[in-house]
Amino acid sequence: MSNSVTEFNEYRAKMNDEILGANNKILKRIFNLDTNAFQEGALDKRTKEIVGLACSMVLRCDDCVKYHLTKCHELNLSDDQVYEIFSVANLIGGTIVIPHLRRAVEFWNELKQSETNDL
Amino acid sequence: MSNSVTEFNEYRAKMNDEILGANNKILKRIFNLDTNAFQEGALDKRTKEIVGLACSMVLRCDDCVKYHLTKCHELNLSDDQVYEIFSVANLIGGTIVIPHLRRAVEFWNELKQSETNDL
Amino acid sequence: MSNSVTEFNEYRAKMNDEILGANNKILKRIFNLDTNAFQEGALDKRTKEIVGLACSMVLRCDDCVKYHLTKCHELNLSDDQVYEIFSVANLIGGTIVIPHLRRAVEFWNELKQSETNDL
Amino acid sequence: MSNSVTEFNEYRAKMNDEILGANNKILKRIFNLDTNAFQEGALDKRTKEIVGLACSMVLRCDDCVKYHLTKCHELNLSDDQVYEIFSVANLIGGTIVIPHLRRAVEFWNELKQSETNDL
Amino acid sequence: MSNSVTEFNEYRAKMNDEILGANNKILKRIFNLDTNAFQEGALDKRTKEIVGLACSMVLRCDDCVKYHLTKCHELNLSDDQVYEIFSVANLIGGTIVIPHLRRAVEFWNELKQSETNDL
Amino acid sequence: MSNSVTEFNEYRAKMNDEILGANNKILKRIFNLDTNAFQEGALDKRTKEIVGLACSMVLRCDDCVKYHLTKCHELNLSDDQVYEIFSVANLIGGTIVIPHLRRAVEFWNELKQSETNDL
Repeated sequence: MSNSVTEFNEYRAKMNDEILGANNKILKRIFNLDTNAFQEGALDKRTKEIVGLACSMVLRCDDCVKYHLTKCHELNLSDDQVYEIFSVANLIGGTIVIPHLRRAVEFWNELKQSETNDL
Repeated sequence: MSNSVTEFNEYRAKMNDEILGANNKILKRIFNLDTNAFQEGALDKRTKEIVGLACSMVLRCDDCVKYHLTKCHELNLSDDQVYEIFSVANLIGGTIVIPHLRRAVEFWNELKQSETNDL
Repeated sequence: MSNSVTEFNEYRAKMNDEILGANNKILKRIFNLDTNAFQEGALDKRTKEIVGLACSMVLRCDDCVKYHLTKCHELNLSDDQVYEIFSVANLIGGTIVIPHLRRAVEFWNELKQSETNDL
Repeated sequence: MSNSVTEFNEYRAKMNDEILGANNKILKRIFNLDTNAFQEGALDKRTKEIVGLACSMVLRCDDCVKYHLTKCHELNLSDDQVYEIFSVANLIGGTIVIPHLRRAVEFWNELKQSETNDL
Repeated sequence: MSNSVTEFNEYRAKMNDEILGANNKILKRIFNLDTNAFQEGALDKRTKEIVGLACSMVLRCDDCVKYHLTKCHELNLSDDQVYEIFSVANLIGGTIVIPHLRRAVEFWNELKQSETNDL
Repeated sequence: MSNSVTEFNEYRAKMNDEILGANNKILKRIFNLDTNAFQEGALDKRTKEIVGLACSMVLRCDDCVKYHLTKCHELNLSDDQVYEIFSVANLIGGTIVIPHLRRAVEFWNELKQSETNDL
């Protein structure tokens, strides 16, 4: 894995452990819901991750974008598909989203690169 | 069609004509992009309308929600599918989205009702 | 109760029933969390409703503001206390919040008036 | 004046009086700053009202848009100038701004109409 | 103090001096209001800092969260109290707030650690 | 040029090339619109860059602020003018904007410094 992908995953895992360890019921349930909401249902996982990525982008949250990009990569979305999500999100959210698009493209490239490195 | 569905569509159409009639190039191109971005591509129309609906909901725009609900209705999305989009959007966007969810459910019901009336 | 207070409560109750009746697990749990999060805990109810009101105001959600104003009224917050919440929210959120402040003040006055009417 | 222009101005004036009458120091100073910030300075009034209009639009506040449109109308901005502000705001803020653009165009037309009526 | 707490405070102080040194009246008054709004009043300081923290979190501003966490630490809020504010803010603001929650928890831990170091 | 100005420009240019190289039509047109919208028109370039800067600030996008500050610097806006834009944006957007103001002031100083270095 590229350094930035690994770093992102490790920080995320470490802090999630910390948060869940605090034993706040509401936060634990929100984290639990977050896992459940993206399971296969009336909509398939792919569609839900696409939704998660697009919403993260219009709300301009870099870490959320990275998380859902990782999931989209695991689910084998193609470059063209990912760029179509980017394009719809940038149209809806406006040019204010572009700096987040730049960082998303950089991370997407690192995900693809890390895959090659793992071979 | 129910009154509120018809009213929404008529106001939308009337004001869009007004805006496009003003001959501002940038606005015309944005409207044009809006049509193109939701066409069949690497992602199908259904997925794109689902994305449009979810993004509209997390950004809390009632009229955008209504527009994409109308499209989802035309594309025959089921109740369960629409409620899954609602659930993901409310989880990502938080309880601040709930008042928009109420109005979305009301409009979705009117869309389904108007269909019955049209028979 | 004044008409607008009653109308707000009735529409809210009706649509919440509709949403919960749809049996979407995620939405039901979000609604359930919403009830739990504002219960007495390490922070008392009053403080939590104050937080709910301030957050609703900076996020500029009129219906959420109305809901938490109703709760603050039930918990006997004084005018001065409510206006201090308004002032902090308008400072943090900026003058873009002012139109929501106007509607909040109007609803707060109706809540106080409805109380008189109920005597 | 058209009814909706008059209604908007009257509600705004009435509620501002109510707010200022509550004697909350912070709110009074915010209202005072709001008046001062848009005075002639290193930037002229026109430029500041243009900024006020554009910011109100990207932040999607209909009432703020109406207020700054009224000021732009008083300062004799042309249709072309107002539509250029609209276009920049819709590009930066994205298509999520379009429903607010529709209501802005409607209000701008009413402002121009009310002027004719006043002759 | 931990390095990140010190760094945050130093950068904040340095840039505030720079901003106030520019002698822009409006900005100076906004900074002044910011100090006044959080003073003891109809609501006590603690409640106001709790409001400041929650609003900063739902508006997803890391630096504002850090600032109000520092104040909450000075006012001796307990872990349980701080986590209840986090939980309400994450429920209202949605899972999009979680990355900010991670950084908030990290900073809160550093504040507690720095206290130990200062002994 | 100062390091941070150069770094910002280089990263921006590199990632824009990457994005445009992906051949997504919608994204290419959005980038193209972005260039066109800020050209001389019914409003002059200066006014449009002022609008771009203010909108970027109220929407709290550091990179967008840096981009428009660079343009304002090229168009020879004075310190007083830039601070007036800052003040209006911070009033409209609230104190939640202040951390972005700090970084904006830092970048503006670097732009002025880089100019001196280039002599």
